[in-house]
Amino acid sequence: MPLNIEKSIAELEKLGADLYHKDFLLTWQKSDAEIHAVLKIAEILKEMHAQNIAVDMFKTGLAVSNFRDNSTRTRFSFASACNLLGLAVQDLDEGKSQIAHGETVRETANMISFLTEAVGIRDDMFIGKGHTYMKEVAGALDDGYRNGVLNQRPAVVNLQCDLDHPTQSMSDLLFIKNHFGGFENLKGKKIAMTWAYSPSYGKPLSVPQGVICLMTRFGMNVELAYPEGYDLLPDTIEVAKKNARASGGSFKVSNSMESAFKDADIVYPKSWAPFKVMERRTQLLEKGDQPGLKDLEKECLANNAKFKGWECNDRMMALTKAGKASYLHCLPADITDVSCKAGEVSAKVFEGARLGTYKEAGYKPFVIAAMIAACTKKEPARLLGELAKAARKRAL
Amino acid sequence: MPLNIEKSIAELEKLGADLYHKDFLLTWQKSDAEIHAVLKIAEILKEMHAQNIAVDMFKTGLAVSNFRDNSTRTRFSFASACNLLGLAVQDLDEGKSQIAHGETVRETANMISFLTEAVGIRDDMFIGKGHTYMKEVAGALDDGYRNGVLNQRPAVVNLQCDLDHPTQSMSDLLFIKNHFGGFENLKGKKIAMTWAYSPSYGKPLSVPQGVICLMTRFGMNVELAYPEGYDLLPDTIEVAKKNARASGGSFKVSNSMESAFKDADIVYPKSWAPFKVMERRTQLLEKGDQPGLKDLEKECLANNAKFKGWECNDRMMALTKAGKASYLHCLPADITDVSCKAGEVSAKVFEGARLGTYKEAGYKPFVIAAMIAACTKKEPARLLGELAKAARKRAL
Amino acid sequence: MPLNIEKSIAELEKLGADLYHKDFLLTWQKSDAEIHAVLKIAEILKEMHAQNIAVDMFKTGLAVSNFRDNSTRTRFSFASACNLLGLAVQDLDEGKSQIAHGETVRETANMISFLTEAVGIRDDMFIGKGHTYMKEVAGALDDGYRNGVLNQRPAVVNLQCDLDHPTQSMSDLLFIKNHFGGFENLKGKKIAMTWAYSPSYGKPLSVPQGVICLMTRFGMNVELAYPEGYDLLPDTIEVAKKNARASGGSFKVSNSMESAFKDADIVYPKSWAPFKVMERRTQLLEKGDQPGLKDLEKECLANNAKFKGWECNDRMMALTKAGKASYLHCLPADITDVSCKAGEVSAKVFEGARLGTYKEAGYKPFVIAAMIAACTKKEPARLLGELAKAARKRAL
Repeated sequence: MPLNIEKSIAELEKLGADLYHKDFLLTWQKSDAEIHAVLKIAEILKEMHAQNIAVDMFKTGLAVSNFRDNSTRTRFSFASACNLLGLAVQDLDEGKSQIAHGETVRETANMISFLTEAVGIRDDMFIGKGHTYMKEVAGALDDGYRNGVLNQRPAVVNLQCDLDHPTQSMSDLLFIKNHFGGFENLKGKKIAMTWAYSPSYGKPLSVPQGVICLMTRFGMNVELAYPEGYDLLPDTIEVAKKNARASGGSFKVSNSMESAFKDADIVYPKSWAPFKVMERRTQLLEKGDQPGLKDLEKECLANNAKFKGWECNDRMMALTKAGKASYLHCLPADITDVSCKAGEVSAKVFEGARLGTYKEAGYKPFVIAAMIAACTKKEPARLLGELAKAARKRAL
Repeated sequence: MPLNIEKSIAELEKLGADLYHKDFLLTWQKSDAEIHAVLKIAEILKEMHAQNIAVDMFKTGLAVSNFRDNSTRTRFSFASACNLLGLAVQDLDEGKSQIAHGETVRETANMISFLTEAVGIRDDMFIGKGHTYMKEVAGALDDGYRNGVLNQRPAVVNLQCDLDHPTQSMSDLLFIKNHFGGFENLKGKKIAMTWAYSPSYGKPLSVPQGVICLMTRFGMNVELAYPEGYDLLPDTIEVAKKNARASGGSFKVSNSMESAFKDADIVYPKSWAPFKVMERRTQLLEKGDQPGLKDLEKECLANNAKFKGWECNDRMMALTKAGKASYLHCLPADITDVSCKAGEVSAKVFEGARLGTYKEAGYKPFVIAAMIAACTKKEPARLLGELAKAARKRAL
Repeated sequence: MPLNIEKSIAELEKLGADLYHKDFLLTWQKSDAEIHAVLKIAEILKEMHAQNIAVDMFKTGLAVSNFRDNSTRTRFSFASACNLLGLAVQDLDEGKSQIAHGETVRETANMISFLTEAVGIRDDMFIGKGHTYMKEVAGALDDGYRNGVLNQRPAVVNLQCDLDHPTQSMSDLLFIKNHFGGFENLKGKKIAMTWAYSPSYGKPLSVPQGVICLMTRFGMNVELAYPEGYDLLPDTIEVAKKNARASGGSFKVSNSMESAFKDADIVYPKSWAPFKVMERRTQLLEKGDQPGLKDLEKECLANNAKFKGWECNDRMMALTKAGKASYLHCLPADITDVSCKAGEVSAKVFEGARLGTYKEAGYKPFVIAAMIAACTKKEPARLLGELAKAARKRAL
């Protein structure tokens, strides 16, 4: 059943959320109304796109894409989101630029923003750095806007940092919300956010951290499971606990994939590196200690290898609610016998869930667009209403 | 004489071609009506551009550019074409992306296409791979569209593969069609598609293959000439033979540049590597066998050097019809004493034909735009008619 | 006080300048009326942007960005300028393209321009090359346009060459014009364009050359100061002398930072390499003589180090008019104890001037846009008047 655009806009209005001139960095800094507003805008934009209604709310304007780590899907999601709104993406490629030559973040942030409406940043490799960097950029933009350097305050959107991956977790959330027929139906549902084996190391922590911090807000029973030692950042565990208490859900940490999968409605099996390893890695990277990095990788892979049993396969899926849990993944998954010899998920389980994971990913461009719209428009509901009424064709 | 837009649109309508939701991969998979429809749309778009009429039939939307081989002109042609239609180009740079990290083609194709209308691919280095890859992408997009992952089916456009280079050959065709005053005047004209000497090796086969397979459809007498051993892919030879028979033209293969140039109305002298060499090269590249590649290059260059006589110069041109054949080249040409010591063409012959080759290249952006328009619009004739009638200024 | 758009457009009209189908390469090739026209358009565009009025005078069209040296701010300025006018930027990355493979400049210039409206070039590393290259590109575009290869003549904009950096110097000029309340108030003002110490070498000469050649046109007293040996290109010195004579200002060269700063209203302390060194560097770069380049760098840094006293600090600033000269810099500055141990400017002086330098930089996108508009539009005043009257919202 397609979304009722008019009704959704009215609901958005009623939320009374105000993100204007703010950024979207961490879900746990946002109120429930703000989270719901972004999700609502995302769904409205997605439906308007499906109905071929133009939503280019900017005639001109730049969007800066600053990727400090590789990415296909998030890069394209950001580009798609910006294009949908009418913005042109300009990459801030630190190889090409003079950033490495002593420019301060403060200066660069202003220099790239004279005609910029949104800055999307991915910086997830260094523990303690990514979120800090985004805050610095945001602070510099506040400074520039306040002092008349910039005509407009560009919105900073976190495309993945060391703490959170909000565009991912909110896409995941929209997918399961629609799968189960509404937010109210998520209450009491069990979601297993579990580590899974992968023949690689150094995968960021932001996905599991983002998931446990967001899903605990919706009355779900969240079980985080990982082999001993594969801890997440302690602060995010505290956020998840607090959120679960407030929402009437629960949050549990275990060291058993089986325990997490038991009666789960949703499973999210995904590899990550232990927080402590990521900290050591950050230090080695900062020192440029290549032999140290090699040694760390070797040590970690050897450690990972002890937990090859952490694979999402038929045996594991059989433990879930009626054996039919929804499978989530941020993609790309390490698929046993497809992308590697032994990985996070069996080919059979993945194939069964494949189209679902594509649709899950399909929310991301609209979630990013919604964050930009919410942070740059004073009255997004009014504006969306006007665009819906005008109903200009996007593609003639 | 400028094109009559209204008349051309009526002719387009009459062709009754239907490319909607299809791709443009190989000319020989397309009916005559489909080929003519794309050419007609290209000419209409070119004339509308000349008359400063906006043809941005997309208000927003992405076009993905996936270049697996270097290119200036095709890259710019694709960017120009997409921009003309209102699409924003996003490069799928496999260095930047996670494609190398185990993603399947199927997944990537969908991940980059949520808001994408066209995917342009250049993949011409590996015999047996390029066309196969494009079909895989197209299949993945069919799958995603059919299953509701994608709101729209992006058109895949072949920007050069191991088999064909349709945007090139169709630009070549438009150039000679207009040069000789219409398709009917191409009947009985002789075109010499010949190998020419170049101090480089490994040039793709797709240009000569594309030319012989396309030009044989228009009643031309096509002579393909190359030194012994410089064969093209056998399948394309079969296509050319069949096309010639059907069109009332002829197709001949010889080992003499002189024979091909004799009484030719059009000459297309261009270097390429032997099919067998490209096959060996593909295998060596796959194995990453650098010494093997060096050896192969050395062997080939030594072999090329035996055929330095295959140069398009005054002596050769004198053999052509009244000494005045049209000279075609996909550019850049290896010009003797300009870009190299001895090359495909003498400086004098090239300089005489230079502006012609530029104009030949000038069709390409419009051919690409036409392919995208034909494959993404249900009724391109109606749409072009509306745009022509509205006559919005492209540049104020 | 915001600019009166209507009044400015009337003033622009009165200037009667005609830049249509020309390029913007060197300020000293432009008449006063032409310089004032570009500055006027820049200010009008800046005010229209501030008032959220769309100025996208192109519905579609490409802008080619050709950076032969690194850059953050100029790259973003160009991208911003083009986007503001409705053009899409396509990078001509010579790594990606076939330019290195023997294509002539003439051919490439046409191949990238079939749907192109502007070509921005940065080529400042090689003495005697950058400006020459730009002229070649411009000549090739003339040739293509004249011969019907191109439907339109793209404007070439100098984003920094070996001689001039007009988008920088004209942004500097707009900043001080507005700071002092009008061009008439610049008469008799003293500006110190001085060398300053930096722990790097090889910085281009185009900024000081551009500044002395432009500021001397406005009746200012320009003092150029540098340590013995750090000469600029002799031709530009001659231009500055001539301009000063014509404008009723003065131009003096000294070897003392103190002398230049004495009673200055404006200071522009900035490092550069001696002209002779840049010439030697050009030759070494052409030969690919890495050891020679290393030696040259070592020699130069040792020489630079003799002039660490050339720092803009409180002591120097105290010498200026009432101790309160305006500080200019093209950014990024080498700031002592911030970006390096000892640099061009003390942290305290820079911090005091920081927001000013940001605003100075903020003119650049609009100066570039103005150059493009002036060179591609027959009647820019009429067009701006229409856009101002229509007052379409840029951001809804």
